[in-house]
Amino acid sequence: MRSEAIAHPNIALIKYWGNRDNDLRIPANGSISLTLGGLENRMSVRFEEGSNADALIINGEASGPDMLGRASRHLDFMRREAGVEAGARMESVTNFPLGAGIASSAAAYAALTVAAASALGLELDQQTLSRIARRGSGSATRSIYGGFVEMMAGDTDQSSYAQQIAPADHWQILDLIVLLDENVKHTGSTAGHALAASSPLQEARVADAPRRLQACRKAILDRDFESLAHIVERDCDMMHAIMMTSEPPLHFWSGDTLQIMAAVRDLRAQGAAVCYTIDAGPNVHCLCLPESENDALRALTENGKRTWKVLRAHPGPAARVV
Amino acid sequence: MRSEAIAHPNIALIKYWGNRDNDLRIPANGSISLTLGGLENRMSVRFEEGSNADALIINGEASGPDMLGRASRHLDFMRREAGVEAGARMESVTNFPLGAGIASSAAAYAALTVAAASALGLELDQQTLSRIARRGSGSATRSIYGGFVEMMAGDTDQSSYAQQIAPADHWQILDLIVLLDENVKHTGSTAGHALAASSPLQEARVADAPRRLQACRKAILDRDFESLAHIVERDCDMMHAIMMTSEPPLHFWSGDTLQIMAAVRDLRAQGAAVCYTIDAGPNVHCLCLPESENDALRALTENGKRTWKVLRAHPGPAARVV
Repeated sequence: MRSEAIAHPNIALIKYWGNRDNDLRIPANGSISLTLGGLENRMSVRFEEGSNADALIINGEASGPDMLGRASRHLDFMRREAGVEAGARMESVTNFPLGAGIASSAAAYAALTVAAASALGLELDQQTLSRIARRGSGSATRSIYGGFVEMMAGDTDQSSYAQQIAPADHWQILDLIVLLDENVKHTGSTAGHALAASSPLQEARVADAPRRLQACRKAILDRDFESLAHIVERDCDMMHAIMMTSEPPLHFWSGDTLQIMAAVRDLRAQGAAVCYTIDAGPNVHCLCLPESENDALRALTENGKRTWKVLRAHPGPAARVV
Repeated sequence: MRSEAIAHPNIALIKYWGNRDNDLRIPANGSISLTLGGLENRMSVRFEEGSNADALIINGEASGPDMLGRASRHLDFMRREAGVEAGARMESVTNFPLGAGIASSAAAYAALTVAAASALGLELDQQTLSRIARRGSGSATRSIYGGFVEMMAGDTDQSSYAQQIAPADHWQILDLIVLLDENVKHTGSTAGHALAASSPLQEARVADAPRRLQACRKAILDRDFESLAHIVERDCDMMHAIMMTSEPPLHFWSGDTLQIMAAVRDLRAQGAAVCYTIDAGPNVHCLCLPESENDALRALTENGKRTWKVLRAHPGPAARVV
């Protein structure tokens, strides 16, 4: 009863922030993302008959009790489905920094869901896997699929899942991730989502989401980078507007973040196909077309006196057993 | 027919952004400000019989046609009231940088209104002066009064004016203005207000304004700095949330702005009575109690490797003829 899976993080092009149901992680609004090939979480799960304790090893080290507890609760749900009670040893290896706004929990819970389902002998379709992954991490819902993915917010456990808009080879968008702060962020997404409703602006953001989703979906299907850039930056800034006006406020941008945002806007004004988006952390994801990659890299690594480390990702495949 | 007036800029504690009526400058929401003593605009107005042209001299130099046109339209309104047709020479002298987010137009139009009314022999009460000043610059409405001032949004020319909440000597709040960029800002307030409604979040911000006004009014009357700091920072960030999500977006913060905002929050967490607020420009206004001034100045001038120039203001008096 052992299985191993690989899943990729994803970068949300239209963000979700705030849950309709925090326990079930049913989001307040739908979202669209790009699955990030090049960055991966490789997760092995082994159920051990006779053991009733779980263990979680992340990059070679035993995890703390909070992370283990969250992973165990996720397995409990799947164990009940399979009628299994054995404890499990989970080993996770990532090739990118954790907890720094690169959706590490998305990749981890997508991989854990796929590996555990396989180890438990559950034959589940992608939609069901995405629903289950959602209960571990909201953005993991989308990492079940490759390419361009939309998560329907839904309003019940059954209706809240993701589906693919277009496969990875539909459009070669690159994600240059500028690592401004590899430290673990102050407020995790789970705690952050719970604060969203305290912003007086959140309701308006959620009400406007269908318009943004539609604009993003159309830009992807039309391979229209200018339209994509426009809605992606606007949606990103709108999420951060909610974060910084919540109670307490969450400020994820550093001075460097703002500087890169401005540099990216300038680059685009000069004709480069590049835009920014930022998750719940200071790092900046610079999405670009391949022909603008060199311009973007030059601007990002030679900006001012700083040199920033840049990770490179491209449209990636679905979560899968290996 | 010559008169001279002094008026002070003001810093909005609860901001207004967006107009219900752009021509009459009737704001979308009420606002509260502190009139800033120490910074001033000294304006002389001389109506010259036989002349039918206006002239505007700012700090010794003839102004451009846009600024002159705006000032002339303001005088036209007052000339009609007085039944005067003569052209006027306006001379404005300021002791602080113009157009850099320090409400220079508030001080200028408050001083111009008071000086012109006096030169034209119009005997007007403060409420009427504040209504007239509003038509020149929305925030000038508040600079007619000293101390702590509230502007009622109203919904007609008659009902949109300011009144004093408490005089300057009610509470000694200092404003340390960190000048990050003395250059003229990219988008003036007049153009910016017209964009406010294009943010999907603006309606929610306006709807929530009565709560913020009430919290600020109470904090001022109670001399409760902690409560003041809380609502002032939240309101500031909410206005900037609207700016950066408007179409096109307006980004007034620089990397340095964010760095100082974070430094101020840290200072307060350590017990200093200081908070930030930022108008339509990159400069940061650090409001503090006198006992925290030295701590704040140290943090602001020794932050990192930079040294920033800091202007100091205190609760100031009403606009007045001199």
